Amino acid sequence: MKVHLIAGGAGFIGVNLAATLLQRGDAVIVIDDLSRGLRDNMAGLTGHNSFTFIEADCSEPDVLDAALGDLKIDEVWHMAANSDIPAGVADYKVDLRQTFLTTVAILDVMKRRGIPVIHFASSSAIYGDHGDELIHENIGPLLPISNYGAMKLASEAQLRAAKEAYLERVSMFRFPNVIGIPATHGVILDFVRKLLASPDELEVLGNGTQQKSYLHVSDLVSAMVHIADRQEDFAFYNIGPTDDGVTVRFIAETVRDAFRPEAAIRFGEGNRGWVGDVPKFCYSVDKLLATGWRPSLGSSEAVIKAVSEIIAGEAVR
Amino acid sequence: MKVHLIAGGAGFIGVNLAATLLQRGDAVIVIDDLSRGLRDNMAGLTGHNSFTFIEADCSEPDVLDAALGDLKIDEVWHMAANSDIPAGVADYKVDLRQTFLTTVAILDVMKRRGIPVIHFASSSAIYGDHGDELIHENIGPLLPISNYGAMKLASEAQLRAAKEAYLERVSMFRFPNVIGIPATHGVILDFVRKLLASPDELEVLGNGTQQKSYLHVSDLVSAMVHIADRQEDFAFYNIGPTDDGVTVRFIAETVRDAFRPEAAIRFGEGNRGWVGDVPKFCYSVDKLLATGWRPSLGSSEAVIKAVSEIIAGEAVR
Repeated sequence: MKVHLIAGGAGFIGVNLAATLLQRGDAVIVIDDLSRGLRDNMAGLTGHNSFTFIEADCSEPDVLDAALGDLKIDEVWHMAANSDIPAGVADYKVDLRQTFLTTVAILDVMKRRGIPVIHFASSSAIYGDHGDELIHENIGPLLPISNYGAMKLASEAQLRAAKEAYLERVSMFRFPNVIGIPATHGVILDFVRKLLASPDELEVLGNGTQQKSYLHVSDLVSAMVHIADRQEDFAFYNIGPTDDGVTVRFIAETVRDAFRPEAAIRFGEGNRGWVGDVPKFCYSVDKLLATGWRPSLGSSEAVIKAVSEIIAGEAVR
Repeated sequence: MKVHLIAGGAGFIGVNLAATLLQRGDAVIVIDDLSRGLRDNMAGLTGHNSFTFIEADCSEPDVLDAALGDLKIDEVWHMAANSDIPAGVADYKVDLRQTFLTTVAILDVMKRRGIPVIHFASSSAIYGDHGDELIHENIGPLLPISNYGAMKLASEAQLRAAKEAYLERVSMFRFPNVIGIPATHGVILDFVRKLLASPDELEVLGNGTQQKSYLHVSDLVSAMVHIADRQEDFAFYNIGPTDDGVTVRFIAETVRDAFRPEAAIRFGEGNRGWVGDVPKFCYSVDKLLATGWRPSLGSSEAVIKAVSEIIAGEAVR
């Protein structure tokens, strides 16, 4: 039985990953400072015999090492990060500490303890704005336009250097926009909450033509586990659906139709919602497809499923 | 008269840059913690009316801001970094603090003070190992194999995000191996010092076939100033000579011939001298050449000139 440490495992993606690893018969230790992750997110995990939760800061090597005590760990999944991109634009210290210094601390502790394998939640935000160019894994230059993307790229670089020096295996997953539950942020949740606050009208930042691809979290976890199972020395893959994505308008209409069919949608101007938001994104997942993985849902199906999951979750509150 | 702040300006490249900017009639403030830069390096600058030196740590925003007091600054040149790559391999905290957190602190202070322009000493080390592939500015992926390269790439990423949010102009110089005086490290100085310690034999790490291109610091400074003068919004250029470089064997023989002609050279095995040392490097400077800049010296001429300068300097001690 393999023992997995999931840093940031109380967050949206972490809890889904934890559930899958437990289902596979492995043991899971989640470490999370609960600054963004929530104890409630782990409700479905805490009863499991092979599940351990530790509340601790992952951005300080000594704190992290002490928190792990005598636990023996085989592989680390580093999912700890700031998940609020605008917050990181307003104050760079947010991404510096939560997105990058977590990587630094985790690597420090892995070296001390001789933990040989890490899987890292990177991001499509490392690529920056390439216009209409197809974004495959080997594109350059890498000039991320948000502090979030910058600190994900910094983490990738530090992981590569650590691989050269002492790690056995590294895999890096360049996430697309991921949706599903337990959602803590993102456009669908924003729209649902806006409609809860004002049921007659949904105000959308930008003109609604921004197009992005969306992956359901179930497909994201299946891709991560698939890549990890390949045991490549140094793997880095775009993960995403195989389509070009859907527009903000489609998402707004899907939420409206499912939740407040009578509401009017009001669009803003321009094709950028906030600083650091890339308007269009042609994301290649050919490298991953060539390994045999397939997503079960396309962007529009993922949006429809996530909208229904999120509405159900918010309705309960 | 423009006022330039050179962070890390007491180092090898910083003092050469400072001298050139002063010659152009501008004012120069050097800020340096003297952890690697030396007061002696600034002997030729301190008599100048338009020169100011401040001894301070550049990796803490509040410390840096306080040290600058009421000084008005037009442009920043960020040359502060760890210059000892093996030291950064042994302890990642060296590059984290000296190479990356300096960038973070400098950007923080620029935002506070509304300083709109930065020029950054990046490195060819951001590219990592691309085998025989020609390294142009848009190559990918960017997977640096040393902590030094990782923290230079992290700095580039943070600069790009800062450009998106508040900076007016950014230029990034991807330095090759740079040689000249006042040398503080590097293969030429190592060889000279080895021959000072044991005049009969020069021991070389690796088999001597490692090939790298070298630029003389005078050409490096001319390229930086040339790029800065173009006032592009966001510039990033490889800087280097136009040749494919010289071998370690050539450097060893040049040093031996100029300094201890009777000494034997003994080579080691393999084509890597240390972790993080890329064996061969095909570095394209076509983008820079297209702007009209030309180096005055090729790699072998630069080596011959720097060997003579360094021997003269060491002989004085």
